[in-house]
Amino acid sequence: MRIIRSPAAMAAWSEGLRREGVTIGFVPTMGALHDGHRSLIRAARLGSDALVVSVFVNPTQFGPGEDLTRYPRSLARDRALCRRERADVCFEPTETAMYPKGYQTVVTVPEIARRWEGAVRPHHFQGVATVVTKLFGIVRPHFAWFGQKDYQQAMLVRQLVKDLNLGVKIIVRPTVREPDGLAMSSRNVRLSVEERAVAAMLYTSLQEGREAIRRGITNASAVQKAMASVIEQEPLLTTDYLAVCDPRTLEPLTRITSKAVLLGAVRVGSVRLIDNLVVSAPRKRRGKMVERISATWLPSPAPR
Amino acid sequence: MRIIRSPAAMAAWSEGLRREGVTIGFVPTMGALHDGHRSLIRAARLGSDALVVSVFVNPTQFGPGEDLTRYPRSLARDRALCRRERADVCFEPTETAMYPKGYQTVVTVPEIARRWEGAVRPHHFQGVATVVTKLFGIVRPHFAWFGQKDYQQAMLVRQLVKDLNLGVKIIVRPTVREPDGLAMSSRNVRLSVEERAVAAMLYTSLQEGREAIRRGITNASAVQKAMASVIEQEPLLTTDYLAVCDPRTLEPLTRITSKAVLLGAVRVGSVRLIDNLVVSAPRKRRGKMVERISATWLPSPAPR
Repeated sequence: MRIIRSPAAMAAWSEGLRREGVTIGFVPTMGALHDGHRSLIRAARLGSDALVVSVFVNPTQFGPGEDLTRYPRSLARDRALCRRERADVCFEPTETAMYPKGYQTVVTVPEIARRWEGAVRPHHFQGVATVVTKLFGIVRPHFAWFGQKDYQQAMLVRQLVKDLNLGVKIIVRPTVREPDGLAMSSRNVRLSVEERAVAAMLYTSLQEGREAIRRGITNASAVQKAMASVIEQEPLLTTDYLAVCDPRTLEPLTRITSKAVLLGAVRVGSVRLIDNLVVSAPRKRRGKMVERISATWLPSPAPR
Repeated sequence: MRIIRSPAAMAAWSEGLRREGVTIGFVPTMGALHDGHRSLIRAARLGSDALVVSVFVNPTQFGPGEDLTRYPRSLARDRALCRRERADVCFEPTETAMYPKGYQTVVTVPEIARRWEGAVRPHHFQGVATVVTKLFGIVRPHFAWFGQKDYQQAMLVRQLVKDLNLGVKIIVRPTVREPDGLAMSSRNVRLSVEERAVAAMLYTSLQEGREAIRRGITNASAVQKAMASVIEQEPLLTTDYLAVCDPRTLEPLTRITSKAVLLGAVRVGSVRLIDNLVVSAPRKRRGKMVERISATWLPSPAPR
């Protein structure tokens, strides 16, 4: 596995392979790799000829009061994981290479970024949209893999790629969970034992919402209340938002008529946790409620 | 010459050639082609293996009160010019193909866009930055040519390409002028005979500024006054701005110690005219004022 730090060298590597007709797969990460990343890297390894994993803790997607300095870093272990999973390149640009003196360009995807994570973390998504545009410009992948855990981010990247004609196919893979259901996240290592014990309640809350929908509840506010009741049981958890949304636009739904995404964000101590579930409403067929196969449904990429 | 209207077909054409190692040159235009465009197309024809000219009147770079509907259009003549100059492709996307329903992404280059044209025409440069990013995403050129007449735009595109790692070399060509000095522009056809007769005074004003600098005046405000005095003579002309700026950042200078760009924008009737000159201050050598060769100087592209 090659370690490349310079954007120009990375671009040259990709350009050379593209010329030979080699397809390039890309998994952009902020390091502190876990089994969620591993699942993306494995899918990418199977889905492309050459595989690039980037490790870059992007400062512009962290707000002033946020956890940039505390964000976990484990470069040696990350490289080992990439090597084991047979990545061809680990791309590790420096902050100065990505944002040199005089840097100023910003990419925004205003509608998808307006709510939820975007509302709680102003400027977060413009940081994400900008760095993804840059990384795609440098790596020039044919395909890129993102995790469903960051649902809003994945939808934002799809919109961005479509809008700016970046020519990258975005593939979203299901969230990987701990045995108790907690979505894997680099930030989980910062949970205390006590906090860790209650962290999976976010997933429980989303499951509660899913069950309500599967039971035939179509009133989004009732589903939201079912989710909230779980979080309210636990004083260590504070809700940022729990929402029932259109899976494509992320606008809140009032009635659940077909598909919905349940989005949740809670704080436990100094750690923020996010998670989501995509759910299909049961449909009536010959008077009977028939549940759709829905667990793995995600909006398909729009044609370029 | 091939006429391509679909972005997907355009991207496929370019991708195929890039794979074969063919270099792609690109001249993005809004049509109504004149000798200024012709000079860009000729330079591009000489500078690349395959040549794409785009004709797209981008609605997002026009403000609400601006001249989008009155913008001159002459597609048949534009195609004939492209054909004569041996373009390989005339790319003519529709508005719907460029901005389909649900479109939302915006690219901004805030510092370069803040002043001058950006101040007079809010949102103009975010429209330019966004469409250029899109066109580069679709056409995937190795090189792209821009005219110096739109100086601020050319600097913005350079910054954009560097910041977003778009991998396109930007080449800026000198302004092409009518015999009386008026910078060629698609909007010139909308000047009445009376207006046309005074339009070249914008260039005269910039020349006056240049002469002042060459005579050794280093006080930017004095140079600005020299330019303004020309425009003030003509009641048909209204000044939007006349400025003495750093050629790279476009920030106003107070003293001219090395290079400056003189930027001007005036209104005549319903038409806005812009123009610029890049000037070097004479430098003292062995006590004598020696003028630098400066007429064609432009900031060189920053390394990627």
